[in-house]
Amino acid sequence: MKAGVLFSGGKDSSLAAVLLSRDYHVELNTFVFDAGRRLPAVENAARILGFPWHVMTFEQGLLERAVEMIRSSGYPNDAIQMVHRCALLELSRNYHVIADGTRFDDRVPMLTRDEVQSFQDLRHCSYIRPLLGFPRREVDSLASRHLRIVCGETSCLENGDYEAEIRDEFRASGEDAGKYFPAFHEQSLVIGTISQ
Amino acid sequence: MKAGVLFSGGKDSSLAAVLLSRDYHVELNTFVFDAGRRLPAVENAARILGFPWHVMTFEQGLLERAVEMIRSSGYPNDAIQMVHRCALLELSRNYHVIADGTRFDDRVPMLTRDEVQSFQDLRHCSYIRPLLGFPRREVDSLASRHLRIVCGETSCLENGDYEAEIRDEFRASGEDAGKYFPAFHEQSLVIGTISQ
Repeated sequence: MKAGVLFSGGKDSSLAAVLLSRDYHVELNTFVFDAGRRLPAVENAARILGFPWHVMTFEQGLLERAVEMIRSSGYPNDAIQMVHRCALLELSRNYHVIADGTRFDDRVPMLTRDEVQSFQDLRHCSYIRPLLGFPRREVDSLASRHLRIVCGETSCLENGDYEAEIRDEFRASGEDAGKYFPAFHEQSLVIGTISQ
Repeated sequence: MKAGVLFSGGKDSSLAAVLLSRDYHVELNTFVFDAGRRLPAVENAARILGFPWHVMTFEQGLLERAVEMIRSSGYPNDAIQMVHRCALLELSRNYHVIADGTRFDDRVPMLTRDEVQSFQDLRHCSYIRPLLGFPRREVDSLASRHLRIVCGETSCLENGDYEAEIRDEFRASGEDAGKYFPAFHEQSLVIGTISQ
C-alpha cells in the first residue's frame, strides 16, 4: 500500500517516513506556496532517504491568507494549523493513506481526535501519525539511530517547513516576521542516514 | 534498548510488540490478579511471536478494589483505567521503556497527555504507544499482514485481558458480571504469524 508522507526534510517527518516504510510504499510530499520555490536541501534529504519525492503547490492565495491570520491574531499557531489542514486535504486527493511527523508532544500543527475522524470519514482515507505514540526522548533516540541531522534556527536552515515561506512573505512586505514567531525555534534537516 | 510491553495475547498488544521489535528488544509482560492463574493461550501467543514472556502479579487487594469500583459506578471504565495504571506503574519498575497496544480509537484504557507526561517524569521512563497514531482501519490491515488471529467474546476467549479475571470474581461472588460489562465486547487472540 502506498502512503503519502508530508515531508519537510526535517527530523520528525523523515523518521515518520522511515518507520512507515517498513509497512508501506512511502512517497514524500513537500508543499510550497510559490510554485517557483527551489528546495535543494529538502530534495537532497529525500534523495538520501531513498523515497520518491514530490513537490506540491498550495492553491493561490493561501500564503496571503496565512499572513493575514498571523497579523490579526499576533501569533502563528492558527495559520500554521490551517495551512497544515490544507496540506493534508490536498494530499488525500492523491493517496488513500497519508501521514505526517506529528509527535505526541507537538502543540501545532495537531488535529484533535474528532478532527482526524471527520477528516478520514470525509476523505475516505487513513491519516497515520507514526510518531504520535512516541515521547520526545524516544523520537530523538530513534532519529539518532537512523538519521544524520543538522539543527539550526528557521531563519538559517532551509528546510520545507511552511514557516520559511511565511517569514519571507512578511519580509517582502517590509515587516519583521520575528515579532510573530517565537525566537529560537529550532529546525532540523536530514543530511545522511545511518545503516543498521 | 529493552522495552517491556503490556501483553494480553490479543491483536493490539501483539501488533504493538511486532512494530516495536524493529527498534527495541521487546519483552512481553502479562499481569494477573491471582498468582496461580494459568494462561496457556497467552503463553502460546507469546511463543508464536518469539519474544520473552513474563507473568507479573498485581498487588494483593487490587481485584477486590476493581470489583468494588465497578459495583459502585455501575460500569467498568474507571476500574479498567485504574488497573491499567497499576500495570504501567509496576512495569516501569523493571524497564526504562514501557509500551502497550493503546490505539487512537480507544476510550479505555487511555491516559491523557498530561497523565502520560507526569507518569514519565515521575518514573523516569518512556511510555510508548506504537499504535496511537494509527486509525483502526490501518491497525486491522497491519495485523492481518503480520498475525493470524481468532476473535470472540470475552466470555469465550481466554486471553490475558484484565476483564476475564474481573468477570470471574463477580461470578465467584454469585453476581452476574454481564450487567456491568457491555455485551458483544470482542476480544482477539494471536494463534500464528504471517512471514513477510
